[in-house]
Amino acid sequence: MSIYEVAYNLEKAIRQSEEFQRLKKMYEDIQHDETSSRMFNNFRDIQMRLHQKQMTGEEILQEEIEQAQKMAALVQQHDKIAQLMELEQRMSFLIAEVNKIVLKPLEELYNKFE
Amino acid sequence: MSIYEVAYNLEKAIRQSEEFQRLKKMYEDIQHDETSSRMFNNFRDIQMRLHQKQMTGEEILQEEIEQAQKMAALVQQHDKIAQLMELEQRMSFLIAEVNKIVLKPLEELYNKFE
Ligand SMILES: [Ca+2]
Ligand SMILES: [Ca+2]
Repeated sequence: MSIYEVAYNLEKAIRQSEEFQRLKKMYEDIQHDETSSRMFNNFRDIQMRLHQKQMTGEEILQEEIEQAQKMAALVQQHDKIAQLMELEQRMSFLIAEVNKIVLKPLEELYNKFE
Repeated sequence: MSIYEVAYNLEKAIRQSEEFQRLKKMYEDIQHDETSSRMFNNFRDIQMRLHQKQMTGEEILQEEIEQAQKMAALVQQHDKIAQLMELEQRMSFLIAEVNKIVLKPLEELYNKFE
């Protein structure tokens, strides 16, 4: 099979995995609930802004750190969002594992000739 | 099939692909030739140093840019190294395509709830 064919099989396996299905369902649950979705989107926005500032080297204010910490504590109290974050973490781990496996041939090649 | 099983199939498909086999062969050819390998490793070192400076925001001297450009022109004249660089580019493109495919389920999920 070609690389592309197997890659599409992998896409399908991810889509059909219990991990992805649970993540998708939790996303839908949260987005269909106004309070949860507002809290979650708010949290995401704050995270994204901090992340962008980190990437561009822009100064992060003490206030912003405190706001992010408060928000993180708040969403942790929220059962569904806490679950969503756990599912996202599990998904990120899976994707990182897949990346490691896929990059193994190249890594071996480069290590051999270092 | 589980995500891991398909990921290992993908690793195998990459390893067996014409692209990877050609890249590996060219690496071996170059590393077995002292002049070529010295030139290539030198070029890699310069690239890596510049890349690291870019990542850490350290100042890049005009001299260093010129040295890198001269070296790039030099390796382009060298048939085998020029070929290796083309094969590496092709491989990077393939890996980027694979990543796009693998991340599609998550991307769709996130776009849906933006
Ligand atoms: Ca509602
Ligand atoms: Ca020799």
